[in-house]
Amino acid sequence: MQVQYVQIAEIEIDPAQLEAYKVAIREHIETAVLMEPGVLALQAVSETEDPTHIWVFEIYADMDAYRAHLEAPHFKKYKTETENMVRSLKLVQVTPVALGAKTK
Amino acid sequence: MQVQYVQIAEIEIDPAQLEAYKVAIREHIETAVLMEPGVLALQAVSETEDPTHIWVFEIYADMDAYRAHLEAPHFKKYKTETENMVRSLKLVQVTPVALGAKTK
Repeated sequence: MQVQYVQIAEIEIDPAQLEAYKVAIREHIETAVLMEPGVLALQAVSETEDPTHIWVFEIYADMDAYRAHLEAPHFKKYKTETENMVRSLKLVQVTPVALGAKTK
Repeated sequence: MQVQYVQIAEIEIDPAQLEAYKVAIREHIETAVLMEPGVLALQAVSETEDPTHIWVFEIYADMDAYRAHLEAPHFKKYKTETENMVRSLKLVQVTPVALGAKTK
């Protein structure tokens, strides 16, 4: 059985560049979900009380899909574009307990 | 336009009761996604390095759907069942930036 690879990214953005960052991550997520069969979900949210604090909940079909994502041209473009916007990035590897979602 | 209500729950579980907690939250999530039209996603994961640290990424159709969820019998059952398993609970209200997911 294929085991999904899931991680949570916690990102702090330079307040002066928050709007530009949001444009970049929206474009990146749209492209990745569309183009990569193994990218099942990329859900980016900002804390309502501190919008510079971004969380991304990431679900990949398996570890290979995650590795392929890291090598994808659109991911590299996003990383380069946002390099100077990101103040800190913390990746937390997690294990699914229950991934419940409407099927349509 | 309807605005989705999204929050992240960060939960610390009593290590001795972790397996019982996982059973309870799995049953709860399955029921809520099945029974409540406004519960779009409830995604529970545990930190791989510290499984007693649980994160739940929650997407509701709107604020009314979240309020209805809090009143649902299966939510109240889950809260009662897990009351003594949960050491701490932090809810972070968040705003969607990009919620990308495969459509099927």
